[in-house]
Amino acid sequence: MTNKDARTPASVQDEKSEEAGKSIGWHKAYVEGTRPDLRVPVRQVHLTNGQSVTLYDTSGPYTDPLVDTDVRRGLSPLRENWIIARGDTEEYAGRPVRPEDDGIKHTSPRGGLRNLDAVFPGRPRLPRRGRDGKAVTQLAYARRGEITPEMEYVAIRENVSPEVVRDEIAAGRAVLPANVNHPEIEPMIIGKRFLVKVNANIGNSAVTSSIEEEVEKMTWATRWGADTVMDLSTGRNIHTTREWVLRNSPVPIGTVPLYQALEKVDGRAEELTWDIYKDTVIEQAEQGVDYMTVHAGVRLAYVPLTANRKTGIVSRGGSIMAAWCLAHHKESFLYENFEELCEILAAYDVTYSLGDGLRPGSIADANDEAQFAELRTLGELNRIAKRFDVQTMIEGPGHVPMHKIKENIDLQQEICDEAPFYTLGPLTTDVAPAYDHITSGIGAAMIAWWGTAMLCYVTPKEHLGLPNRDDVKTGVITYKIAAHAADLAKGHPGAQEWDDALSDARFEFRWEDQFNLALDPDTAREFHDETLPAEPAKTAHFCSMCGPKFCSMKISQDIRREHGGTRTEIEEGMAQKSKEFAASGNRVYLPIAD
Amino acid sequence: MTNKDARTPASVQDEKSEEAGKSIGWHKAYVEGTRPDLRVPVRQVHLTNGQSVTLYDTSGPYTDPLVDTDVRRGLSPLRENWIIARGDTEEYAGRPVRPEDDGIKHTSPRGGLRNLDAVFPGRPRLPRRGRDGKAVTQLAYARRGEITPEMEYVAIRENVSPEVVRDEIAAGRAVLPANVNHPEIEPMIIGKRFLVKVNANIGNSAVTSSIEEEVEKMTWATRWGADTVMDLSTGRNIHTTREWVLRNSPVPIGTVPLYQALEKVDGRAEELTWDIYKDTVIEQAEQGVDYMTVHAGVRLAYVPLTANRKTGIVSRGGSIMAAWCLAHHKESFLYENFEELCEILAAYDVTYSLGDGLRPGSIADANDEAQFAELRTLGELNRIAKRFDVQTMIEGPGHVPMHKIKENIDLQQEICDEAPFYTLGPLTTDVAPAYDHITSGIGAAMIAWWGTAMLCYVTPKEHLGLPNRDDVKTGVITYKIAAHAADLAKGHPGAQEWDDALSDARFEFRWEDQFNLALDPDTAREFHDETLPAEPAKTAHFCSMCGPKFCSMKISQDIRREHGGTRTEIEEGMAQKSKEFAASGNRVYLPIAD
Repeated sequence: MTNKDARTPASVQDEKSEEAGKSIGWHKAYVEGTRPDLRVPVRQVHLTNGQSVTLYDTSGPYTDPLVDTDVRRGLSPLRENWIIARGDTEEYAGRPVRPEDDGIKHTSPRGGLRNLDAVFPGRPRLPRRGRDGKAVTQLAYARRGEITPEMEYVAIRENVSPEVVRDEIAAGRAVLPANVNHPEIEPMIIGKRFLVKVNANIGNSAVTSSIEEEVEKMTWATRWGADTVMDLSTGRNIHTTREWVLRNSPVPIGTVPLYQALEKVDGRAEELTWDIYKDTVIEQAEQGVDYMTVHAGVRLAYVPLTANRKTGIVSRGGSIMAAWCLAHHKESFLYENFEELCEILAAYDVTYSLGDGLRPGSIADANDEAQFAELRTLGELNRIAKRFDVQTMIEGPGHVPMHKIKENIDLQQEICDEAPFYTLGPLTTDVAPAYDHITSGIGAAMIAWWGTAMLCYVTPKEHLGLPNRDDVKTGVITYKIAAHAADLAKGHPGAQEWDDALSDARFEFRWEDQFNLALDPDTAREFHDETLPAEPAKTAHFCSMCGPKFCSMKISQDIRREHGGTRTEIEEGMAQKSKEFAASGNRVYLPIAD
Repeated sequence: MTNKDARTPASVQDEKSEEAGKSIGWHKAYVEGTRPDLRVPVRQVHLTNGQSVTLYDTSGPYTDPLVDTDVRRGLSPLRENWIIARGDTEEYAGRPVRPEDDGIKHTSPRGGLRNLDAVFPGRPRLPRRGRDGKAVTQLAYARRGEITPEMEYVAIRENVSPEVVRDEIAAGRAVLPANVNHPEIEPMIIGKRFLVKVNANIGNSAVTSSIEEEVEKMTWATRWGADTVMDLSTGRNIHTTREWVLRNSPVPIGTVPLYQALEKVDGRAEELTWDIYKDTVIEQAEQGVDYMTVHAGVRLAYVPLTANRKTGIVSRGGSIMAAWCLAHHKESFLYENFEELCEILAAYDVTYSLGDGLRPGSIADANDEAQFAELRTLGELNRIAKRFDVQTMIEGPGHVPMHKIKENIDLQQEICDEAPFYTLGPLTTDVAPAYDHITSGIGAAMIAWWGTAMLCYVTPKEHLGLPNRDDVKTGVITYKIAAHAADLAKGHPGAQEWDDALSDARFEFRWEDQFNLALDPDTAREFHDETLPAEPAKTAHFCSMCGPKFCSMKISQDIRREHGGTRTEIEEGMAQKSKEFAASGNRVYLPIAD
């Protein structure tokens, strides 16, 4: 969307990166808040008619030519002074990093040594947490009526007043994920009152990809608009990979701690314990993970409800917890110890993403008893988390046919006191593997229109393989489309200004502006040039479908020129002008499509 | 969707094309009707568990290894005997083909000679029309209570009774486009009671592509599921190209006669006359065009309503008629002569596709006065067409944000007496050129769920260039997804069987079945093999995301194996089985994504 504040030149800090800007059609600008160290980045698109359009920007310092970034050093901790200034946190020694944190067994031939070359070389830091177990969460501050710099930051980004931000957070209708140990992030907010957000999943696995690849995937995803990134790394170097990702990420990072905990017990679900899980949560909280998926809603009694399903349990976290519950015939240790977990998360301001471990994995299983039984438990856990001032969002499905989508968001909002809903798609059919970014993009746009706050992207490789760089981009772009379509349908203030700017450029044949305003300028330009490569075509008054002498938009313009600009002018002018028009010999050539 | 009738072995004519079938995972079969010359093609997918799934098939004889096809000969006229047997049509000399029909001016250096090498070489045929101007339309027959072979054919295809088909056509809620001069088509039906259909546009232009390319694009589009094809050819050889396409097309062909008429007046809109237009309609009706887009709703008085729009008039047909109306300051000659046009179409059973020449071309212009003024006129014209027994569908937008989509289908159904709605998208945002198959696929799925009968595809090149072969495939696949998602949401009988079959294959790790049941088996297989190329992987009990020892579906199966298949078995079994389960040492490895 376009940011009104940002468009008033005074408030825009033009960093004079014109060269850099020109080459890509836009440049990085900053909107200053009430303090010099509060500068909100925006993407300023320069139009050939001299105007400019300012768009929300998630790409971080990497797209600012004046900032020298180095992944070995990490990003500068822009929130550090705000956190310290609150005076409610303290540094402490923290938990020692152990070989098994990187998935290295004591019994391994390498004697349990970590690969020290891989260790993040940036400035050493001590972890920070709330003094004497105090809740240092944005929710706690909001409830106390405090407007933090983080809240002001997102208010500027969202083009609303800081008071609105505080209200939504205080009411639990929005979360601002910002671990006190992740000072590098540019604050963002997730809630139905705000722009719909998109999450991109990255993560290495036992067999594929390196630390560098994951850091690169993260910056690539945010370059195209990912608002948060989940690091779902597994296998070796899981702790070290996460450290590199966190220190270099301008967006909040989410994880599923259960995956690493499972690594620590050699993948034997039944050997998981509360202590191992808790230790892993603290390890990740000290590193700076901003939100964690916790499958505490998968209760022993719900597992049998999945027995008659077509595709059983498709959430990995859900199936791990189901296996644990059955193996011990005990209630989930996550459910049993949920209050203690709340105390831990509150001390770091880690946000809950309560996982839907029993989400449907096929059209046939949508909205069934197992799914909604878990949702009711998530509502119960949401209320407990709020007692501890822990910010909370709720995860949602999955595979759901269009006519069953609305029930999901309506029930979630009712049962979870309007806590932000964070859904995976939903996929609206099972029959199109290799195109599930599209089957799910349809459901994502609809459920976001109806109130879902964040969408977890799905790539073309879903169900088939590991997403590569191109798949990540396709997933992010598809989901930015779904999110923006929803912003329009919700009537988000300013959202349509972006569409209007692009449509104006289209109608006025400003091709370069059309490209630069596009979600993906590179591909738009490339497609245009496949048909009409010549430079002049980019200023020509015709579209490449219609040939040089005619297109419908051109004749619309002729009508206005011949008959006046306004309706009445046209009505008055039509009669007398009709002859001239005929005489004008305006030639019409045939289009390729109607 | 899967066809219940077709699945009963007795009714399926296995053509023993096993070899051919094996190689692509499916083979062509036929369902016989009440007469030996009524054989409905289906796509039978062979599963590794011995079962088979039967899917709707649009690909024509080209995918039947037992039928020898030759584009120079054309397809065999399977409806010819049905048409003759009705005894209400007659052959006649027909209108001579003139050089200008192929866009060649008498004044051209080539002396107005047609390129005779290009002329279709197949069997010479005389055009056919209704005796003494009789209406020979499926609508006329349905109203008389007759069930034609065409109606029985689509009843088998749609898995409903022939009586339902007759009722829907008689009520004007469905159309069966089948020009008496296009006997080659495999009959299909368009209406909200039936499967949602997809149209693909092809067409050469003055500058690009040859006759062969267009014929190849048509067969390529139907191979991937296009239910109808619109030939929007322009420039040279327009008549001859259409002849090749018609003689080789197994699906109904639509056109916009206005384009060719405009060619005949050198692209000077103001020189268009009713006589030139009428002559062009007869020319195309004699060739066998099954439905024609007619922009008779663009009335003089509506043109000023577009003056304050952001993107004016974006329909080419609409802007041509607007230019004509203003040039002469007269009412549209299409509107003025609509009744005579009805008499012509009735004599060949050409179906109307009443064009929305004033559809919005941007989010800002959606659902405005100009658009709905034209829609009301289309409702008036629809009632006139019905008086002449002419089958009619109504075209719809365009660019519409999600929250304004439902009003379009609801108003159209009310104003046009439930005549089939045929929409272009709608695109739900303007900001993603190069991804408009997705921005529009979202709107298409929604409006189809709410009752739209046919969707005109949009390719990634929309707004940017001319679609190539890959773009045509991407457009068709995206729209088949939207159409099937809508069939599921509408609860179309049998629609979910396809999803269920694929999800069963997924849960049971039958990878080959998953690929063969996919909308695009080639790409699904290719994506899978990028991660796990080895053959064994295709039968292995894990998905390529989760590594060899674990995936959530596997653990779901373990749970069933360990604890019994049904819920009660699991409940009873859980306690005593829990120890064995623990002892089973079932190992769980980490997934890449949750």
